[in-house]
Amino acid sequence: MKIAVLGTSMVGRAVSVGLANLGLDVVIGTREPTESLARTGAEDFGTWAAMNGQIGVGTYSEASRDAVLVVNALNGAVSVAGIRAAQIADGTVLLDIANPLDFTGGMPSLFVCNDNSLGEQLQREFPGLRVVKSLNTMTAAAMVEPHLIADGDFTTFVSGNDDAAKAQVMSLLGSLGHQDVIDLGDITTARGTEALMLAWIRLMGPLGAPYFTWKVAR
Amino acid sequence: MKIAVLGTSMVGRAVSVGLANLGLDVVIGTREPTESLARTGAEDFGTWAAMNGQIGVGTYSEASRDAVLVVNALNGAVSVAGIRAAQIADGTVLLDIANPLDFTGGMPSLFVCNDNSLGEQLQREFPGLRVVKSLNTMTAAAMVEPHLIADGDFTTFVSGNDDAAKAQVMSLLGSLGHQDVIDLGDITTARGTEALMLAWIRLMGPLGAPYFTWKVAR
Repeated sequence: MKIAVLGTSMVGRAVSVGLANLGLDVVIGTREPTESLARTGAEDFGTWAAMNGQIGVGTYSEASRDAVLVVNALNGAVSVAGIRAAQIADGTVLLDIANPLDFTGGMPSLFVCNDNSLGEQLQREFPGLRVVKSLNTMTAAAMVEPHLIADGDFTTFVSGNDDAAKAQVMSLLGSLGHQDVIDLGDITTARGTEALMLAWIRLMGPLGAPYFTWKVAR
Repeated sequence: MKIAVLGTSMVGRAVSVGLANLGLDVVIGTREPTESLARTGAEDFGTWAAMNGQIGVGTYSEASRDAVLVVNALNGAVSVAGIRAAQIADGTVLLDIANPLDFTGGMPSLFVCNDNSLGEQLQREFPGLRVVKSLNTMTAAAMVEPHLIADGDFTTFVSGNDDAAKAQVMSLLGSLGHQDVIDLGDITTARGTEALMLAWIRLMGPLGAPYFTWKVAR
């Protein structure tokens, strides 16, 4: 089962490795593969790709071709452009794990919030895709290794208009070890989980490390 | 030690009783005491006040006179007007437990969000008061009886510019039984906790009752 992961930042890399560890055929998509692979500093993509030969590398569209699920691990601000370039086949599930973070000030804010969300923007922009928002409420490592935070004792949310697509994502979340998954409803509920980021970024200072996330205590 | 609670909704009532149960001298403030007390339906204020004679009733300013702490339990939209009417003495701690909820549409949204917050609005509007935002992330009953949710195993946040005022509120939270209290920083961090409401309101449907709140899993 082929999975595409769009984006080569720390988020895309962590998610690619986590999904490959489940035995999935993962291809990571980058705007310019040759350029990305040529970067070979300690933390650069070329070095990472060489150490992770089990993961394919291609353009956004090469990665997405025949993928049953495409993960949006791009920066929120470039998500629409990247997904457009990927030319993803209609009906494909787009798992959106990005946040609409605006880094132009000091403390980040959100470039859509309250009456809109990145998840909704993507669903409107790509009506043929089945957008499911999830995993955007935690640091990348915990998305695929939930035991890293409180032994996995936290809540993971899904939002989306298509129940079958959400079921597919929830099955994947279960395989990854997510223990408490709440289906919030349609894609407009991404307004809720993306807004959690406004508190998350303000917890980084007091907590000193990104290994925390939300549990719905009840 | 006199405490004023501004607002006679279910929030103000629950908090008044909880604080009175700590042995504090609580006066609940309402715009028109005579009018409020005249309402004697099953869920009306007059009935509640008759059943809770340990709690004083007065105008906003009568309630606030000589109070060491004033709780803003008013609807977000009328908070500025109510607090202005209360004529609270400079230096008093204003514990803001309200949210800037906009109920004019269907699903509520926030009338300030992302780059502003109700907490900040109040601090700007009343620079002589020491505003501390807290408790706005849970249903009213749990604010004063935290054991009602997950045996109290959740996180409570404080935001504010004045460390002594936050320490006073944190001491009160401890007396009420709040186990995990995180000081997020200055009053701008209220942007984070108020935004949690956007996810909270979307959990009401899936969870079916308001007895849930956020735990920072870590």
